[in-house]
Amino acid sequence: MKIAIQGEAGSFSHVAARRMLRQDVDILACRTFDDVFAAMTSGAAGAAVVPIENTLAGSIHRNYELLGASELHIAGETLLRIEHHLIARPGTTTDRIARILSHPVALAQCQRFLASVTAVAVATDDTAGSVKLIMGGESDDVAAIAGAAAAELYGGEILVPNVEDHRENYTRFLLLSTAPAEVTDGAMKTTVLFRTPNTPGSLWRALAAFALRDINMSKLESRPIEGRPWEYSFYVDLSGGPAELANALGHLREMCEFVKVLGSYRAA
Amino acid sequence: MKIAIQGEAGSFSHVAARRMLRQDVDILACRTFDDVFAAMTSGAAGAAVVPIENTLAGSIHRNYELLGASELHIAGETLLRIEHHLIARPGTTTDRIARILSHPVALAQCQRFLASVTAVAVATDDTAGSVKLIMGGESDDVAAIAGAAAAELYGGEILVPNVEDHRENYTRFLLLSTAPAEVTDGAMKTTVLFRTPNTPGSLWRALAAFALRDINMSKLESRPIEGRPWEYSFYVDLSGGPAELANALGHLREMCEFVKVLGSYRAA
Repeated sequence: MKIAIQGEAGSFSHVAARRMLRQDVDILACRTFDDVFAAMTSGAAGAAVVPIENTLAGSIHRNYELLGASELHIAGETLLRIEHHLIARPGTTTDRIARILSHPVALAQCQRFLASVTAVAVATDDTAGSVKLIMGGESDDVAAIAGAAAAELYGGEILVPNVEDHRENYTRFLLLSTAPAEVTDGAMKTTVLFRTPNTPGSLWRALAAFALRDINMSKLESRPIEGRPWEYSFYVDLSGGPAELANALGHLREMCEFVKVLGSYRAA
Repeated sequence: MKIAIQGEAGSFSHVAARRMLRQDVDILACRTFDDVFAAMTSGAAGAAVVPIENTLAGSIHRNYELLGASELHIAGETLLRIEHHLIARPGTTTDRIARILSHPVALAQCQRFLASVTAVAVATDDTAGSVKLIMGGESDDVAAIAGAAAAELYGGEILVPNVEDHRENYTRFLLLSTAPAEVTDGAMKTTVLFRTPNTPGSLWRALAAFALRDINMSKLESRPIEGRPWEYSFYVDLSGGPAELANALGHLREMCEFVKVLGSYRAA
């Protein structure tokens, strides 16, 4: 079974996929998140792994939107520490580097390091793909910023470890599947998308569904609804699986215009 | 009075500053958001303008954090449509462009356009600063991605307008001041930061302060608290100013460990 990810082999999504599936995985490298979801719709991939939030950058709204519009289920989650390294062909020395390649978001997370060197930062589609690119070339004045898995996979050398500005850089990844997860043990978590009517207090009445039942919310985020000013969708992560949440979700449906359960899965 | 912004003259922050202050402004260009806040602390600037959320990228958490840790007040807000253009020295033709310079976030918002050209995307500190840089040089194979104000200010030519992936790209900017805003007419808005105890239902009890008084919340967002797993801070935007919200804020303080009013200001 192919696992669709954004980016190339050796990317953080690839590492997250291996960890969640507890095995080597056959990945389908996609250029954009939209392509990942399209690969699931067409059947080209049997599952997908996407980042959903980062401790520095916040929620990755595009993936929430794509997930809300799809028929896919969240089947698992994992939290990955993001460590960026300066990677080059073995034998390259730091003082000779003229260009540093990486994804714009990774470059933005390493601005302090980039300001300290004379090399030019070049934006590419992907972190791991940048390592693959420089290893396939013959220049000894080019480097990439990516994770350790990319250096290992393509045979690059880590010239400068941990070039990220902030150590507290974690990304939460979700495993997406066409079927709901079958969880038989351990603590579960459920992610729900809902929309409240545009009246004061409507969110409070919706959240009563959880508060009155002592159900823990580990995340709550609002998103404006495109074309409907002052109206919001909410993403919520709840402790518990379908059985424990049945009454609360029934109550939520009474209070809301729209409720969609995105999946119940084993809490990481 | 100097107005501190991240980026150079002609940036989106500069446009937002002119709009909120209804005049030409004397800006203090800073490299990072941290530098903007430092300029306010040192007295080098008398006010600051920072982006706080974007419809595509979500909240700019670093600015919420810096604001929460500062003694500054939010004194105004404005919503700016973000339009990115490909800008070059007059006479340059699109097919000759070998390098395109811009801030990593702007490059990330123009990935569809960048994938359609052969030019290399080069990450810089700033959108407007990239236009300034190419206009100061003599190369005719380099362009920048920035807003129209930067093209106008530095005399650049817009080669390709609207190279952004999504049209629904708006950024909300805040005016920050050492003194609270004096608002004498029109609808007001108040931004509050609060932290709830780590018990189920604590957020719901906190939000009762607004729901029971029919006070409208136009934004609610949760942020994990560093080093305190499962505990969250919340940012909320409320309709109303200090007088209308006095009782609700008293009630909120009873329910929360920490409450900080970041400012009351005229709603945009």
